[in-house]
Amino acid sequence: MDDRTLLDIIRPVCGEETCSDDCAILYLPCAILVTSTDMLHERSDFPPGMTDWQIGWMSVAVTISDIAAMGAEPKQVVIAIGLDNEYRLAEIVKGAQACCTKFGAVYAGGDLDAHSELTIVSTGTGIIMDGEPVRRRGAVPGDLICVTGTLGRAIPGLLGDMRFWDSLCEPQPRVREGIAIRLAGATAMMDISDGLAISLYDIARESGVGMNISSELIPLPEETDEKQALDAALFGGGDFELLFFIPEKNFGKLENLTTPVTCIGRVTSMPEIRMDGSALLKKGYFHHW
Amino acid sequence: MDDRTLLDIIRPVCGEETCSDDCAILYLPCAILVTSTDMLHERSDFPPGMTDWQIGWMSVAVTISDIAAMGAEPKQVVIAIGLDNEYRLAEIVKGAQACCTKFGAVYAGGDLDAHSELTIVSTGTGIIMDGEPVRRRGAVPGDLICVTGTLGRAIPGLLGDMRFWDSLCEPQPRVREGIAIRLAGATAMMDISDGLAISLYDIARESGVGMNISSELIPLPEETDEKQALDAALFGGGDFELLFFIPEKNFGKLENLTTPVTCIGRVTSMPEIRMDGSALLKKGYFHHW
Repeated sequence: MDDRTLLDIIRPVCGEETCSDDCAILYLPCAILVTSTDMLHERSDFPPGMTDWQIGWMSVAVTISDIAAMGAEPKQVVIAIGLDNEYRLAEIVKGAQACCTKFGAVYAGGDLDAHSELTIVSTGTGIIMDGEPVRRRGAVPGDLICVTGTLGRAIPGLLGDMRFWDSLCEPQPRVREGIAIRLAGATAMMDISDGLAISLYDIARESGVGMNISSELIPLPEETDEKQALDAALFGGGDFELLFFIPEKNFGKLENLTTPVTCIGRVTSMPEIRMDGSALLKKGYFHHW
Repeated sequence: MDDRTLLDIIRPVCGEETCSDDCAILYLPCAILVTSTDMLHERSDFPPGMTDWQIGWMSVAVTISDIAAMGAEPKQVVIAIGLDNEYRLAEIVKGAQACCTKFGAVYAGGDLDAHSELTIVSTGTGIIMDGEPVRRRGAVPGDLICVTGTLGRAIPGLLGDMRFWDSLCEPQPRVREGIAIRLAGATAMMDISDGLAISLYDIARESGVGMNISSELIPLPEETDEKQALDAALFGGGDFELLFFIPEKNFGKLENLTTPVTCIGRVTSMPEIRMDGSALLKKGYFHHW
């Protein structure tokens, strides 16, 4: 089983309503809270060569990226750390704190534990006071399919292209972009940390739609092998960009963003996802048991 | 180093204000949120013989107990699960859901991961809309020192006294009690999951006070070896009862609680903690590195 199959065990227990997005949602009288939790392990999630500071940074960034994907403002992060070596704590905490500060959240403590393999779980809470979160359900036929930034950077970094090492180890969640995209009237959004292809399938499932995308529209880094870069963007994971869906009439509202935003295709009513006219492989970053 | 020593590395980074209580605190215009995160591992935290359902229950209960210790109402729990075996997931999730439901919280999904040792991190959010959370700082000389329930039940359960097996494996966080204690005007509170003695030292540190307690006042289970039971209560951990501090004039407001509440001593201005006139050993459940 992979983790998306296992999710099917959880859905009936915790309800579709709360298990289908990057974050859990909690309605309060004055605000909507979104909460995300992410577990990371040294061997499977932190590339060899990362510093402990970067490990702390990344642990927070993955969670803040999920908050950004709802169009919310990060407010608070708590971190549970299972430490294999006490002398790693200070740098991990400094990296975590730096990431919180950069994106406007308070690092508010957490839990400490001893563990044979370094294990970090960061849980972040974001807030929306001027609207509704953007969910995975909501995309409708005709919507533009868009992404922020340049995809396919993390995997080349992992494979030794040092130009992308920082992209891999110090991901920059798209917080301002997520809020702007929500305010512009996006209909659905998620981050593509597991890869673009599987994220398209996730949105298609939740929204009950199909999609057509063009490979030549996907924004890739310059001076890289195009085929490898495309493969990394589609199936590799590790790029903390946003995938979002927006009516064409609203797209112009995003023109003031400093981060590039690229339209890569359009939502359809057909129950399939096609790239350049052929079915897109449903493959991404999975945990397997 | 133990975990309280390691906390001293984190305090300067995340600030005394956010690292000194059972929960992190976030102020919103209409409510105060409290958030707690707890990491549990199979070998160190789940006694052999527990069912997976009980593992799910306990993972949530420890977090809800922290929320109860602030006098807040649990609203939402997210859980990150590092699974060693996919077939354990369904029962773990059912136990977690049962505990959420019993104490009024929504189980709102989380994260799934593969891991060599079962590792669960539950993060819970509680809310207060009619007052301030009860913190660890706030106890003043003259306050009564009180506990809920009967202490020293979990350790005998762990050592084979089957009368206490359920107390150990299915702890019942004191949610209604915590709210009532807050409304009655308690000055400080925490749960005693690491043992009574170390909890007294935690409050003394945060509040800048001393304490006198009497061993004969500590509520212990009937028909047990008194010395062993007292040792379990003071230094053993695993009892999810509340330790709280309250001005004598407010104690009467708790008389309608169905759970017994016992006064075991009084706060002093001396910088020490004494039991029966002698210094109390500063010992509890620690993680050691």
